[in-house]
Amino acid sequence: MSAFHMESGSLADGRQILYYSTEPEAGRAGYADKRDLGERGRAGQVRYDRLRDEWVAVSAGRSARPQLPVACPLCPSEGDELTEIPAPDYEVAVFENRFPSFGGFDEPGPLAPTEVGPEMEIAVPASGRCEVVCFSDDHDSALVDLSPERVELVVKALAQRTAELSARGDIAQVFCFENRGVEIGVTLHHPHGQIYGYPYVTPQTRKFLAAAKRHKETTGRDLYEDILESESNGPRVIAENEHWIAFTPYAARWPFEVHVYPKERFADLAELPEEHIASFAPLYLEVLKRCDLAFPGEPMPYMSGWHQAPVGEGREWGRLRLELVSIRRGPGKVKFLASSESVMGGWVHDLGPETSADILKGAL
Amino acid sequence: MSAFHMESGSLADGRQILYYSTEPEAGRAGYADKRDLGERGRAGQVRYDRLRDEWVAVSAGRSARPQLPVACPLCPSEGDELTEIPAPDYEVAVFENRFPSFGGFDEPGPLAPTEVGPEMEIAVPASGRCEVVCFSDDHDSALVDLSPERVELVVKALAQRTAELSARGDIAQVFCFENRGVEIGVTLHHPHGQIYGYPYVTPQTRKFLAAAKRHKETTGRDLYEDILESESNGPRVIAENEHWIAFTPYAARWPFEVHVYPKERFADLAELPEEHIASFAPLYLEVLKRCDLAFPGEPMPYMSGWHQAPVGEGREWGRLRLELVSIRRGPGKVKFLASSESVMGGWVHDLGPETSADILKGAL
Repeated sequence: MSAFHMESGSLADGRQILYYSTEPEAGRAGYADKRDLGERGRAGQVRYDRLRDEWVAVSAGRSARPQLPVACPLCPSEGDELTEIPAPDYEVAVFENRFPSFGGFDEPGPLAPTEVGPEMEIAVPASGRCEVVCFSDDHDSALVDLSPERVELVVKALAQRTAELSARGDIAQVFCFENRGVEIGVTLHHPHGQIYGYPYVTPQTRKFLAAAKRHKETTGRDLYEDILESESNGPRVIAENEHWIAFTPYAARWPFEVHVYPKERFADLAELPEEHIASFAPLYLEVLKRCDLAFPGEPMPYMSGWHQAPVGEGREWGRLRLELVSIRRGPGKVKFLASSESVMGGWVHDLGPETSADILKGAL
Repeated sequence: MSAFHMESGSLADGRQILYYSTEPEAGRAGYADKRDLGERGRAGQVRYDRLRDEWVAVSAGRSARPQLPVACPLCPSEGDELTEIPAPDYEVAVFENRFPSFGGFDEPGPLAPTEVGPEMEIAVPASGRCEVVCFSDDHDSALVDLSPERVELVVKALAQRTAELSARGDIAQVFCFENRGVEIGVTLHHPHGQIYGYPYVTPQTRKFLAAAKRHKETTGRDLYEDILESESNGPRVIAENEHWIAFTPYAARWPFEVHVYPKERFADLAELPEEHIASFAPLYLEVLKRCDLAFPGEPMPYMSGWHQAPVGEGREWGRLRLELVSIRRGPGKVKFLASSESVMGGWVHDLGPETSADILKGAL
């Protein structure tokens, strides 16, 4: 287990920046952001979709955000190259997104209501928070290349962010994730993830909460523990250690899909004991290596996210786990999510979950 | 209104092919399929995803399907060029998909159960049917280029398919759709759509049914009629005629999204009167032209699908409408559905629905 220190500073437009490190008093927060950024970006509103009973963010300003800028904004500032990171180096850095889908207002706003009236057009400000999480100051690295100690520091930073964002009052659910690969539209290749603090509980999470509640009511048992037991004894286990197990689930929907469950029950990252974070790091690095070696020479594009219990209502039915999914379906081939998946939610697994798991099991 | 005739034939592996035409007794079903295709493709199973209360199709054979084959299988057969269409020409042709995600079995199977037991691994055969709908024998055309009479014939064919598939007993919901554009992974450029007959009610449709039921219970009113009234008077109407109205909805989630509602209430295409089909064609062609001219020189990639009421349970809460959605978000730019949308269902509209509607309104 490594040490954990945090410093908080601010950027030229008032956004917060946090430096996380394994050494104390690194003094990075003291570096001033010398850019002239003007007003900070603000999110728009969330509108109620009455046909689906869901909230949709409308964020007109975001279409102006840069695509593959020449200078990387996630590298440390150096000389005249002024970036989003004023310090000359860092271990892990987190800052508020300059083009947020949620939040950016002067004061935290209210949550989106869970009960709405009969009006056909209902909108509230898109409260919440969007943050960028830089995993390393080495532009050309990737999470899979980092040391277990660095992955541990990243997870500790995410746990600290989850705790702080959960306490704000304008966030119903904290989602920490990484999008990786040009195949899924990633515009910044510097190794990084993101955090979305949503002002509502997301549609997918609502399904999990309802399913766990129903499972308890009909069987008397905990859904996640039943899944854990069933998958542990199944043919799709990818990696396992004392505290964690990684498997392709029985009803996987993405060509490659790995769920990483803690063996004990936690609601979110903030509840994870240090030794569980320490043992997560090598296991997750093994999963990432297996993914990258599945089709040699073609690093796996992926979306990897921590599913956490919501902050308020329904929290008792949520449980921490990580899910990594990929559209890669073969060498040089990606699965497009067309009408059946994207419009109807009717998924088709072309490889078969067992075949997909076997490829990952044989990759190392 | 144009005439409507249908002939049924079969392909070398036993799959059905249907020719729809405006002239009677064209005799196309008489052309034999001279290929040696071997066994027809069969779907796999649907597995129950207990964490989401949804069915997922597992169809291992589909990963072998061709990508951009040299000879187009949707062109009419000519000389030694033997395709999926034995006839030398056609107006509209429909045939069973050679690599189906659903169905292809010797006998129609059962629906996926709506109530399941407590077992952790539940699967049933992936009953149902997958069909390909060819809009024209002209390889280089597109739906937007066709005559209103041809679009009318296409919709009549879809209505006939909906009626027939709904009566089979192994299909819970019929979804007729078109994926268009390499940007969304379309591998066959010949103008065509598809029909999925699912053995379950899809997750998105379940949301609509639940929302309509709740709206009735809480307001005493019909949800679709309330949406129609609200949107008709709003700023996002794209096109309108006697029987139909096309609009970008208040809580749109895709950069471009057009909903086309009939002004009267129908459960599915099979219920549509002839004059409503006839008036749909020019209106839909106008919508498609507006989409293609939104960014001149860049035809809009899109997914367009008919939302229909399910065949059985919940049918009274469903209502026919078409939804066209696009990932195009600007010249040369597409929106990727990354973690927030794909994993959590948390959508962000970058342009804003009004801006997006204004672009379409100004495109013609």
